[in-house]
Amino acid sequence: MKMMSDGELEQASLSQLQKFCEELRGEIFRTVSARGGHLASNLGVVELTVALHRMFCFPQDKIVFDVGHQCYTHKLLSGRAEQFCTLRSRGGISGFPKRSESEYDCYETGHAGTAVSAALGIAKARDLKGEDFSVIALVGDGSFNNGLIYEALNSLNILNTRILIILNDNGMSISPTVGSTHEILDELKSGNAPRGDVALFERYGLKYIGICNGNDLSELLPALKNAKEALRTQSVLLHVTTRKGQGYAFCEQQPDRTHGISPECRGVEYSEALGEELTALAAKDRRIVAVTAAMTDSLGLRPFFQAYPERSFDVGICEEHACVLSAALAAGGMHPYYAIYSTFLQRAYDEVIHDVCGQNLPVTFCIDRAGITGADGETHQGIFDLSYLSPIPNLTIAIPANIAEFRAMLRLSADYSAPLAIRYPREGKEGNCDGVEIGKFNILHCNISDIIVYAAGERCIRLARDLLAQAASYGITFTIVNARFLKPVDTEFILSRPEHYVITIEDNVVIGGLGDAVARVLRGSGRVVRCFGCKDTFLPHGSVRELADEFGPSGAEILSYLQVCHAR
Amino acid sequence: MKMMSDGELEQASLSQLQKFCEELRGEIFRTVSARGGHLASNLGVVELTVALHRMFCFPQDKIVFDVGHQCYTHKLLSGRAEQFCTLRSRGGISGFPKRSESEYDCYETGHAGTAVSAALGIAKARDLKGEDFSVIALVGDGSFNNGLIYEALNSLNILNTRILIILNDNGMSISPTVGSTHEILDELKSGNAPRGDVALFERYGLKYIGICNGNDLSELLPALKNAKEALRTQSVLLHVTTRKGQGYAFCEQQPDRTHGISPECRGVEYSEALGEELTALAAKDRRIVAVTAAMTDSLGLRPFFQAYPERSFDVGICEEHACVLSAALAAGGMHPYYAIYSTFLQRAYDEVIHDVCGQNLPVTFCIDRAGITGADGETHQGIFDLSYLSPIPNLTIAIPANIAEFRAMLRLSADYSAPLAIRYPREGKEGNCDGVEIGKFNILHCNISDIIVYAAGERCIRLARDLLAQAASYGITFTIVNARFLKPVDTEFILSRPEHYVITIEDNVVIGGLGDAVARVLRGSGRVVRCFGCKDTFLPHGSVRELADEFGPSGAEILSYLQVCHAR
Repeated sequence: MKMMSDGELEQASLSQLQKFCEELRGEIFRTVSARGGHLASNLGVVELTVALHRMFCFPQDKIVFDVGHQCYTHKLLSGRAEQFCTLRSRGGISGFPKRSESEYDCYETGHAGTAVSAALGIAKARDLKGEDFSVIALVGDGSFNNGLIYEALNSLNILNTRILIILNDNGMSISPTVGSTHEILDELKSGNAPRGDVALFERYGLKYIGICNGNDLSELLPALKNAKEALRTQSVLLHVTTRKGQGYAFCEQQPDRTHGISPECRGVEYSEALGEELTALAAKDRRIVAVTAAMTDSLGLRPFFQAYPERSFDVGICEEHACVLSAALAAGGMHPYYAIYSTFLQRAYDEVIHDVCGQNLPVTFCIDRAGITGADGETHQGIFDLSYLSPIPNLTIAIPANIAEFRAMLRLSADYSAPLAIRYPREGKEGNCDGVEIGKFNILHCNISDIIVYAAGERCIRLARDLLAQAASYGITFTIVNARFLKPVDTEFILSRPEHYVITIEDNVVIGGLGDAVARVLRGSGRVVRCFGCKDTFLPHGSVRELADEFGPSGAEILSYLQVCHAR
Repeated sequence: MKMMSDGELEQASLSQLQKFCEELRGEIFRTVSARGGHLASNLGVVELTVALHRMFCFPQDKIVFDVGHQCYTHKLLSGRAEQFCTLRSRGGISGFPKRSESEYDCYETGHAGTAVSAALGIAKARDLKGEDFSVIALVGDGSFNNGLIYEALNSLNILNTRILIILNDNGMSISPTVGSTHEILDELKSGNAPRGDVALFERYGLKYIGICNGNDLSELLPALKNAKEALRTQSVLLHVTTRKGQGYAFCEQQPDRTHGISPECRGVEYSEALGEELTALAAKDRRIVAVTAAMTDSLGLRPFFQAYPERSFDVGICEEHACVLSAALAAGGMHPYYAIYSTFLQRAYDEVIHDVCGQNLPVTFCIDRAGITGADGETHQGIFDLSYLSPIPNLTIAIPANIAEFRAMLRLSADYSAPLAIRYPREGKEGNCDGVEIGKFNILHCNISDIIVYAAGERCIRLARDLLAQAASYGITFTIVNARFLKPVDTEFILSRPEHYVITIEDNVVIGGLGDAVARVLRGSGRVVRCFGCKDTFLPHGSVRELADEFGPSGAEILSYLQVCHAR
């Protein structure tokens, strides 16, 4: 499609702009259909982004996209239309804002709730340097549940600067937005809001401008002009409603299922097993409750939520609160399962330490999307969890070898009375499991040689098995161990093994993970330990396979090391 | 002093209660004067706690103390008066709520903002189990800046349960409370609040009751009765004003300086050096700004804040926002120094990864109170930071050997254009420093032997030196290296050393710290590495020396290991 230049955007008539928006929408739809990506969120903000590019002067003016999963139109309008077809592919355009990609991307996001803080920092730096430009934070209503936003709003007056917050209200997180903030926004939208609701924003020092239909340029352009004018003297909140998935009926009707589209054909999802097992366990154990931060479906919790609504808690995008709530439910005698993506658990790190493990409470963390996750890039890889969880006292860390073992671990967890973390990837194979015992490894392939391989998690075990087949042609063999507990690590087993060469493979950075744990046990033993895992860098977007080959534990490297061991 | 029984408390006249409060105040003052502890915060809530114990039935009813530094009266009233003289000493009464200490302590706290989430979890567990008791969260206004509170308030309606939140408004965090929330509370106190301010709380589903003088039992008792009545049908926020340090003029006048009292005679504080150096650096470099989450004085930032108010940002108890703000200030071209205690940095872990290191921005983290911190116990030890920071790409981690080296690192940081963490204890010696180079160790004592000791940080280096003196009497000697960079670790140096026995000493849990980093470099080298650090457990309260002996890297253990090495 033909892009409009900045000058054309400024001169275009309303109907020309509307037509342009439809073309952009088609471009986004085609590309996401082919490449995967965030569909509904991007379809919703086409008009809003076009209007912003008409009214403001980027990259001199700055825009921070909260979460960042709605920046496609911005990318198309900022010189990246030609490369847009490479969206989310290795070496192509990222699905999130990237400073290295364009000067139009001033701040990188991926996790919710950072945009207001970020806009404030950029605006304050501008003031200190005596510069003059506008700073905009585009924030969805889902993020208005997140505590970080309130920390930022509270400091608006302290920082004494000016920013424009655009509240993009579509009534959704990935799941529908929940809680009181949502209710306040709904009343504002109804036009029947008590004065106090507007005052909520005004007390933070914001001029409130609303409501405006963000999918209608005839409302949007004057509202933005108004906001830009007001921004000269104070910070402004422009309340815009948009429809997630706008323009495509099946997206509008299923905004949660079309939030993210994945083009890859997939295996079985671990999340399905979570939903099944947890629902079954809850039938026998009334203490079991499920907690999520706005990801019921993605985590597989829907069957549980339907079967046990009174024991199901979606608290919105509030990873920290969800964690403290879980700790307190446990202190009150329940057994909470807090399901969350690996990368988002970072947000609740202090609460994992301080509230759950510090009090040694029986919370089970179900950590999904662990390891290399692929196309969402740097902010969504789950490659740090083994490292940041390992140093926490009282915490048991389990890594299932397949879905059957994951099920066994969940069944075991029901009677476990201390903090337990189970980390697993998105997809895998059902496989088999003969039972699990806390802290015990098991041998998958026993071969007599001087080499033993400890692998954690399904992908790494598959890699080890592939290597076993390949190595056979060099006359090399080794034993493969399923290192299914990182903590407590199976010290007795490790020390009992006679092999001189010890290899570890993990889907996590090598610093502080399984390799370090095994090596710690073997210190002073004279064994030679070599650890393979993810490189010490932020992993960009690409397919899981591409990223694993380039940044993960490398089959080629391990194979050549096996040959070195064999030759000695 | 003689405690009142529950029955006596209930029967006592107002004047008897007032007299009792004065006695409690005296008891707290005497004990804190001798043992150290939180003075002003505890003096402020004596009447409030007495009134709560009169009106509610503990431990059947539950109370969660936010932060927990105001629970002394509660401890005195719940069967711990006799042991109270052991406050904060090893084996004695903790300065914070402890479940293991009493059934009156239902939930443990130490970090700000968790109490509402915790109360909600306990109340929800109660409902699910069909039990009947009251759940109270006692929260200071300082914590009302923290985002976690808003995440919890947002979910009040979702959770559909009942709790009583007592907002203890004394206008203070450790520093005076800042920001818009504080202004709203001030207007409520003035009696001139616009209706919208009360609506703020009501929209969350809370019945707002206020204002009530929390140091005046004649106001407090009827207000609490009122609140208890209302709690039968809905959640309630009771807004109480108290005076921090009430009853002691010098505390009332200096609530920030009497917030925490330390009885130990101390050396030089690292925080002083931070204030001096940063103020000096800022004179030459206009990009330098300082950021803190409500700890200006404790971190030594006062001189900087006085010299450069426009470049100084205290955003209240908002560790996450402070971190994103720092990242964005850096994205805007400034050089932020984010000073924070080690234990509180856990709260901003995701933002350290996602915002600062993910974008490779020049934020310098000044991490105070690292290592064993002593009398505040489990929730305040700084023994995890080396482990949780190590796996983060792009981050440089420095550990000064003394204050002079800390100064040198700060000077070096001014021109450093990537994320840098400097972690240091509260106090130490000025010492000497001949200059610092990123990623380079230096030898402190060079002795020809087969043993080399890598020590990180002042306390561990002192321990190594003490051991060198002691070991001499056994004819043992060794080289001592100042391992002043954990990341990048000095690979070249480590590999160049000929010693067979390698010992590491660190003031951090051994899992994932310096020892693992050195051992990682030496894998396959045939060297024998042995690591000494803190045990894999939460460290209780006690003096730094007692805790170090019992849980830290143990001089006795290292000495006996040295003898083993020597004998081989």
